[in-house]
Amino acid sequence: MDTLIVNIGQLLTMEGDGPVKGEQMKTLPLIEHAAIGIKDGLVVWIGSNEEAKTLSAKHIIDAEGKLVTPGLVDPHTHLVFAGSREHELSLKQQGVPYLEILKRGGGILSTVRATRAASEEELYEKAHVHLDRMLSYGVTTVEAKSGYGLDEETELKQLRVAKRLHETHPVEVVSTFLGAHAIPTDHKDNPDDFLQQMVDLMDVIKQEQLAEFADIFCETGVFTVEQSRLFLQKAKEKGFAVKIHADEIDPLGGTELAVEVGAVSADHLVGASKAGIHQLAHSNTIAVLLPGTSFYLGKGKYANARQMIDEGAAVALATDFNPGSSPTENLQFIMTLAALYLRMTPEEIWHAVTVNAAYAVNRGQDAGRIMVGRKADIVLWDAPNYMYVPYHYGINHVRIVLKNGKVVSERGKGDVSVS
Amino acid sequence: MDTLIVNIGQLLTMEGDGPVKGEQMKTLPLIEHAAIGIKDGLVVWIGSNEEAKTLSAKHIIDAEGKLVTPGLVDPHTHLVFAGSREHELSLKQQGVPYLEILKRGGGILSTVRATRAASEEELYEKAHVHLDRMLSYGVTTVEAKSGYGLDEETELKQLRVAKRLHETHPVEVVSTFLGAHAIPTDHKDNPDDFLQQMVDLMDVIKQEQLAEFADIFCETGVFTVEQSRLFLQKAKEKGFAVKIHADEIDPLGGTELAVEVGAVSADHLVGASKAGIHQLAHSNTIAVLLPGTSFYLGKGKYANARQMIDEGAAVALATDFNPGSSPTENLQFIMTLAALYLRMTPEEIWHAVTVNAAYAVNRGQDAGRIMVGRKADIVLWDAPNYMYVPYHYGINHVRIVLKNGKVVSERGKGDVSVS
Ligand SMILES: [Zn+2]
Ligand SMILES: [Zn+2]
Repeated sequence: MDTLIVNIGQLLTMEGDGPVKGEQMKTLPLIEHAAIGIKDGLVVWIGSNEEAKTLSAKHIIDAEGKLVTPGLVDPHTHLVFAGSREHELSLKQQGVPYLEILKRGGGILSTVRATRAASEEELYEKAHVHLDRMLSYGVTTVEAKSGYGLDEETELKQLRVAKRLHETHPVEVVSTFLGAHAIPTDHKDNPDDFLQQMVDLMDVIKQEQLAEFADIFCETGVFTVEQSRLFLQKAKEKGFAVKIHADEIDPLGGTELAVEVGAVSADHLVGASKAGIHQLAHSNTIAVLLPGTSFYLGKGKYANARQMIDEGAAVALATDFNPGSSPTENLQFIMTLAALYLRMTPEEIWHAVTVNAAYAVNRGQDAGRIMVGRKADIVLWDAPNYMYVPYHYGINHVRIVLKNGKVVSERGKGDVSVS
Repeated sequence: MDTLIVNIGQLLTMEGDGPVKGEQMKTLPLIEHAAIGIKDGLVVWIGSNEEAKTLSAKHIIDAEGKLVTPGLVDPHTHLVFAGSREHELSLKQQGVPYLEILKRGGGILSTVRATRAASEEELYEKAHVHLDRMLSYGVTTVEAKSGYGLDEETELKQLRVAKRLHETHPVEVVSTFLGAHAIPTDHKDNPDDFLQQMVDLMDVIKQEQLAEFADIFCETGVFTVEQSRLFLQKAKEKGFAVKIHADEIDPLGGTELAVEVGAVSADHLVGASKAGIHQLAHSNTIAVLLPGTSFYLGKGKYANARQMIDEGAAVALATDFNPGSSPTENLQFIMTLAALYLRMTPEEIWHAVTVNAAYAVNRGQDAGRIMVGRKADIVLWDAPNYMYVPYHYGINHVRIVLKNGKVVSERGKGDVSVS
């Protein structure tokens, strides 16, 4: 064996088959006093800590009697962009409405401007910093969307950066084309032309293998349900799996559309109707909830996770990492928000950041579970049990992260140098 | 010179005199392109980065063009305790009321039980871990309350741990006696006897110099305004400065009482009446706000920081770090909550975690400002400007912390080992 992880107090294997839905989310596949054997990047053995004493390996990692889980999956981020928007915090505090911030050249359009102006190298270096931080918080697979270009050149630039990150960084990056993120200023009066332009761009994206998902922002003032349906149908014809930014604010019917077109995930869902949630719960579409955005926008309205789970939906959680409405890489904090504001149990939360998040990015067969034969994407926590992580909020509980069986992140022992 | 900090993009000196009140909180004393000189643990020189090039020092620290501020002060924590209460997260999610959790032996009483059972050494080691973490988040001065003993022996044990931490850990620990934190089970029917017991204990505390503040939980179902007045008056007679847990839930009049008895700080204030806030704003009592607790309790009700500041109060912020209602050491996250949910500006927030927090623990002459002749408690941030810290939420922006001129915390360069 290459590596043995021994002395695991609580091992969440998440073992099972398929996404975990509704009631099933209440039970966690868990082994106490466990150990894991790794060879050639794969999990090859799972057993008790006692049995492990009879085995030998080149590297022994001591879990110190604490929690070990699959690497986390963050299934909704806007990883690649330029600039930051801290100045809007003061404007928000003064009560300046978002539409007014937009008018002054702020909001998403300021990020578009900065991203268009940045070189591919600059975008890569900035995203690399954010990705390092995600990894340090336990994330081993992340979805990354384009959508701050809103023109051919910049959308391709963002997607190329995501591809390069996937190839060079230990974290696996799953790429989504979100050219339909907003209507650019110069297409205000002809959004359909703009959408057609983005549809045409898909051929280049497919050819260069720059994205496997296509996504659209279906919302009042952005794209209608009809526009979204057409866009996603064309994306599917061109061979993309699809996602939707659905019903973030208004109950337009994006949730129902997600089910209708067979989207892999429907994301946000804060405004989803009861009927929409009911349909979603009886479909194969994963509900990706982003409570960090609700928290940061401060309006006090969160997605109805309880109805979703109680009716049988497979729910996942994500950071929505982006410079406007959710500037954080910390998926652990999102777990706390889910406990406090989505009223999810700790057990449901762990399904939502591992297995179900993996299915939300079509990595269900690969990531989100610790099982013999799978890639060894594993987090060793400085936490005594799985409940502790969402409970003790706003910090980083990760000690060691393994990706494909290799240690890729380890908390610096020099963090506090004198004390 | 011993040390020069050069290449500071934005230096918040917070220079000034006295606590910063109302309108004054809107302006930040700030120098761009600055440098700081340190000798024998004190700031001996502040100037431009250009001038610094003509100076020499044993150690040069490069601020990399980023933000530098005074070390943060966390003026309200329950640092020393045993156990943790992650199991209550599930109960809360199921809608079990706090009083029912108390009945089942949970809540504060479970922490009291664990703290009584723990040895002084165990308490010291656990609190040391939390204090290390606070330091890593930029805190160089912290207040620590007893109050999980509720008997003579354990209250003294907690205070001795705080004293030992102060003597051995780089972070300065200001100690508060909070024997009047709750009514212990065996005094349910005679709380006045219990309070007298705690008053008597003050003589021992004074003699052993175990605390400089006394504090009481004035709240429905705990101690009344009358009981609190008597307790705090006796504490003052015995030479303690005083603080109050005031009007956290109900508008009992704890805020008014704080002004009446000349408390150094009145803490929580979520339920404070408009009249109480008016009095506070025209007094010398610092308002210590704890939005982490409001956030974690999830009831959506926050202190009225705007009325306080607009009427002229000196507002400070704290974590309220404790195992029940605010398990976090991250004061930076509290800054984000203040921006989003207390509607404080970034400028007001920086006053609230430096100068005003220092005054809330009677360290106004010592901490919270970078001025020639003061102790060099300084944080170097991985942030381009002061607005960025509350904006980019839920992570740690600190690079290097100096206490008394020495580097005591530095982000491990090995945090991400392969990437
Ligand atoms: Zn999004
Ligand atoms: Zn308190």
